[in-house]
Amino acid sequence: MQPRSQNIVFHHGEVSRADRERLLGQRGCVLWFTGLSGSGKSTVARQVERRLFERKHLVQVLDGDNVRHGLCKDLGFSATDRTENIRRIAELAALSVDAGLIVLTAFISPFRADRAQARAIVGTESFVEVFVDVPLAVCESRDPKGLYKKVRKGELAEFTGISSPYEPPDAPELVLRTADLTLDRSVDQVIEYLDRRQFLGAPGNPTR
Amino acid sequence: MQPRSQNIVFHHGEVSRADRERLLGQRGCVLWFTGLSGSGKSTVARQVERRLFERKHLVQVLDGDNVRHGLCKDLGFSATDRTENIRRIAELAALSVDAGLIVLTAFISPFRADRAQARAIVGTESFVEVFVDVPLAVCESRDPKGLYKKVRKGELAEFTGISSPYEPPDAPELVLRTADLTLDRSVDQVIEYLDRRQFLGAPGNPTR
Repeated sequence: MQPRSQNIVFHHGEVSRADRERLLGQRGCVLWFTGLSGSGKSTVARQVERRLFERKHLVQVLDGDNVRHGLCKDLGFSATDRTENIRRIAELAALSVDAGLIVLTAFISPFRADRAQARAIVGTESFVEVFVDVPLAVCESRDPKGLYKKVRKGELAEFTGISSPYEPPDAPELVLRTADLTLDRSVDQVIEYLDRRQFLGAPGNPTR
Repeated sequence: MQPRSQNIVFHHGEVSRADRERLLGQRGCVLWFTGLSGSGKSTVARQVERRLFERKHLVQVLDGDNVRHGLCKDLGFSATDRTENIRRIAELAALSVDAGLIVLTAFISPFRADRAQARAIVGTESFVEVFVDVPLAVCESRDPKGLYKKVRKGELAEFTGISSPYEPPDAPELVLRTADLTLDRSVDQVIEYLDRRQFLGAPGNPTR
């Protein structure tokens, strides 16, 4: 078995996505986490990132912290702005997938149509919709950012799950019920899925 | 000398930019090519990408082809839209730099203020402004996309260098005079600069 970096076939012309994927020993893809506030999207995504990094994979996490204050800082929370927010994140994710990265996005993304658009932008063969399926009552009892408390006091309007709808996925590639699982077990399920789909290296080329 | 993949120090908590840079054996940065249409920005960028890939570096090229039809497809060419276009490209580049990538952007980006904003967004220590300095007459004689011909026929308004200003950089990190150099020599200058700044691996850790 050769180290991954020696498996590269050079050819003329532009460097392709396949070239970069061979360099990295992985296949670019997007894990699109969707679910209520407090369902655990970011927590699971960050832990998946850590576990994949330990296996020497290159991962990019996109979440409110690094997108809402940068690329999308001109956008608010109206329906139009939410749709544009998701569109930009999907376009950004598509470019990162083309660069060979495994991208984890952690946004509520409550609307089916927006997620369908994201899937179309990325390409369905590289798009993994991960439904973090947790009852509202559990999310509200966790309330990691104190947002549900604010909503109940009437300080936040149009809050997903309470005053604004959450449309659950019809056919997500993965469902994580983080209320019934340890964090480690949730992460295992994601990694097992990626292994099964050979995003972490093809069989016969197990570089990790 | 150990292979780069064994230099990684694991620690708890989130995976950092420094972690990803160690994994990749490079330092994330943006080469921001600026210059007139036909100056050679994209051609040089693509060739730098090829040469860096042959040294096993992970590179992302952003240009009109992959940004204007995607992330920025809602934007036109008004002054406001051009500024927003550059802002989004810079935000995108900043995220890629955080992922550890060497990003090459190839946009005319004619306005000093917009480029200064891009530098501020990326962080000046990771931002390399590359002025592709070619006389207008040379660009017009090359006319790779037939755009100058259209302008002279009056079919294109607000064209940089003719009916819209190009503001040359005051203090670019690099100047490429592609009219006086072979393509290979232009590319050499970029690679030598990156080596000198140690973006391609630190001394004592020359993994390539």
